[in-house]
Amino acid sequence: MSVGTNQRIDGARLWDSLMAMARIGGTSGGGVRRLALSEEDRRGRDVFAAHCAAAGLTVRVDAMGNMFARRPGRDPARLPVLFGSHLDSQPSGGKFDGALGVIAGLEVMRTIQDLGIVTEAPLELVNWTDEEGSRFGRSLMGSAVWAGLLEQAEVEMFADADGQTVGQSLDAIGYRGPEPARVFPADAYFELHIEQGPILEKAETQIGIVTGAQAMVFYEAVTRGQDSHAGTTPPSARRDALVCAARIIDLVDRMMRARGEDGRGTVGRLHVIPNSHNVIPGEVRFSVEFRHPSDTEMARLEAQFPREAGFIARDCGVALEITPLLRIAAQPFDPDCIDLVRASAARLGFSAREIVSGAGHDAVSVARHIPTAMIFVPCKDGLSHNEAESILPEQAEAGCQVLLDAVIARANRPAG
Amino acid sequence: MSVGTNQRIDGARLWDSLMAMARIGGTSGGGVRRLALSEEDRRGRDVFAAHCAAAGLTVRVDAMGNMFARRPGRDPARLPVLFGSHLDSQPSGGKFDGALGVIAGLEVMRTIQDLGIVTEAPLELVNWTDEEGSRFGRSLMGSAVWAGLLEQAEVEMFADADGQTVGQSLDAIGYRGPEPARVFPADAYFELHIEQGPILEKAETQIGIVTGAQAMVFYEAVTRGQDSHAGTTPPSARRDALVCAARIIDLVDRMMRARGEDGRGTVGRLHVIPNSHNVIPGEVRFSVEFRHPSDTEMARLEAQFPREAGFIARDCGVALEITPLLRIAAQPFDPDCIDLVRASAARLGFSAREIVSGAGHDAVSVARHIPTAMIFVPCKDGLSHNEAESILPEQAEAGCQVLLDAVIARANRPAG
Repeated sequence: MSVGTNQRIDGARLWDSLMAMARIGGTSGGGVRRLALSEEDRRGRDVFAAHCAAAGLTVRVDAMGNMFARRPGRDPARLPVLFGSHLDSQPSGGKFDGALGVIAGLEVMRTIQDLGIVTEAPLELVNWTDEEGSRFGRSLMGSAVWAGLLEQAEVEMFADADGQTVGQSLDAIGYRGPEPARVFPADAYFELHIEQGPILEKAETQIGIVTGAQAMVFYEAVTRGQDSHAGTTPPSARRDALVCAARIIDLVDRMMRARGEDGRGTVGRLHVIPNSHNVIPGEVRFSVEFRHPSDTEMARLEAQFPREAGFIARDCGVALEITPLLRIAAQPFDPDCIDLVRASAARLGFSAREIVSGAGHDAVSVARHIPTAMIFVPCKDGLSHNEAESILPEQAEAGCQVLLDAVIARANRPAG
Repeated sequence: MSVGTNQRIDGARLWDSLMAMARIGGTSGGGVRRLALSEEDRRGRDVFAAHCAAAGLTVRVDAMGNMFARRPGRDPARLPVLFGSHLDSQPSGGKFDGALGVIAGLEVMRTIQDLGIVTEAPLELVNWTDEEGSRFGRSLMGSAVWAGLLEQAEVEMFADADGQTVGQSLDAIGYRGPEPARVFPADAYFELHIEQGPILEKAETQIGIVTGAQAMVFYEAVTRGQDSHAGTTPPSARRDALVCAARIIDLVDRMMRARGEDGRGTVGRLHVIPNSHNVIPGEVRFSVEFRHPSDTEMARLEAQFPREAGFIARDCGVALEITPLLRIAAQPFDPDCIDLVRASAARLGFSAREIVSGAGHDAVSVARHIPTAMIFVPCKDGLSHNEAESILPEQAEAGCQVLLDAVIARANRPAG
């Protein structure tokens, strides 16, 4: 069964539902604060569940609070096609990060329901718990437990700034479901998301065909010199931890730029001790991260960075400690699923280009076990994790239409 | 009347008095926390006043809490010779910063009393209020008001972190004296202080003949780029405020080193916004300061810094704002007073060398109106503003002996 060209999602309904969801935890600055497993998250989930029920879907919740809204297929032997994203937000987040993938998924289900479409395989719309990691410190939490990358028992002990744990929060909002949070057999997973970067917008491209997620390495770095009086300590006697850190920040930037537009290298967090204008800093603690689509290039970065940073520290007479906190290998997506996204965009007449996801997404957890692809749409100025995050209704509609098209095509492909 | 070679201070008494003062506000880490106008400061002042009275001195307190302990001279027409320092400390300060100058001054008075020395000119030992500026944010506070560089009415409104003002604190500890805090005619001012830097110790020199204080300029700098996602923003789209700040920190260090051992250039305080490991920093605020003994060289630094920092910011695509907060011209000390310190060190057989004060001191305020010189003694590893600040008893004794010698010589010089 091919996809009919008259199978159109309802762009106005999609937009209204996005705006309605954005009011739950909506901020005065036009953004959203709907922290994972908070009261706002509970309200968002309740509304989502009600809409799913109204669209004839059956909602299951697993022990991590991950929600699966199922529509049966014609062939009960077929594995389900999954699609979705997350409803939790950053503390000062936007309306579309995560919510677009879930609400567009709902629109896909509603369209299929309205048009009386019967798919061969069952469909399951997913809302993953705590993608952002802003509250409990671990991003992709629900999907990582589901994919077996984290243990639920361990995750339940993670606490927020007020000491409330994940386990307590699941119980408090009533979203600890009866079934274990564990990967189950599925045919595919699709996730629509805003790009959260400027590439598609700059290229004036409507659809990003996401071919995978880049490799990442996160470090904690500490430079230790000697704090001393800024007025009395001559150049020869200085062991300035901040001058050393500054040269390492410059190194990170140069290493990134040497890799061209695929390179990512960032120092985002930095603390100076004692941080007084007339004291030469004795200690600086800072984050360093590199990302790259290629594991090979990442291995080169990981070899080069501690070596060259060590040379700088020696020149500065400063001790340097670099601790790798997290390594994530590049995660290529499934060629067949990628092809479906490409074909759908082409059939619908959207401009499209391949892109590697710069951010982490639940799709990266899922792709460990299930054939996966993602669809990106541009966002204004590439801005995300920000109240000013915005997209146009037609951009949401385009992404949702590609999602519908790809999901139906996958669910109806000849049984293998 | 010449200085007798048998006029020796009592090194053991000096050391005991230093250690007794260090117990007032003494910390478990071996340092001192005796913040200006605090209860600890009050106790220190009370003990100091009692010792002055016991040594036959008459103590006056002015409206800023500056204390003057007077011993009459033989000639009532002569102007007094002043000497002293400050008893307040940094929050995590040492035993000697300030206290050495006051307690050595007390030892000078006791020695003169014990030996029945009569000086031509009167002598006045001073304890200046709030040299450190740690509590109310303005260093050299008492001496600056006395020297007419600050208005008492303005200073009284300065508040500490708890909202308590200078005026309230003066009243609370009972050290708002009846006479106005205003410069009065005096013949000279001498201040003994630890170097707070490594130069004398490295040169294995016992006495620093301080020829003046260096010029300083303090800036507040802000770099403003665009905060964006560290994973999704390619190199060409980055406007990283921290990379720009890092290159300016490197510039400050290079500009300092280009001036040789006289150069000082420091970024001591820096804040990153939003300061999250996976967000490219959108804004960085930091302090920049330069110091140099020469006003001419300082003028060059002040011309060069905004220009070259501006080039860096333009290269980074980042907006830069540089605000000068404070400019202090170089303050040369009085040649005759300097010669007295030099002659005293030579007569006493101490190794000595000229040095420019890297730090600010009350002597710099006083020198605006009164012929002034300072005496430095080395401190261990050049460490100060630190609980580990330390000197040896013989170093305290040497400095105190030079102070005695210079004060007596000045007070007894032929009237002219």
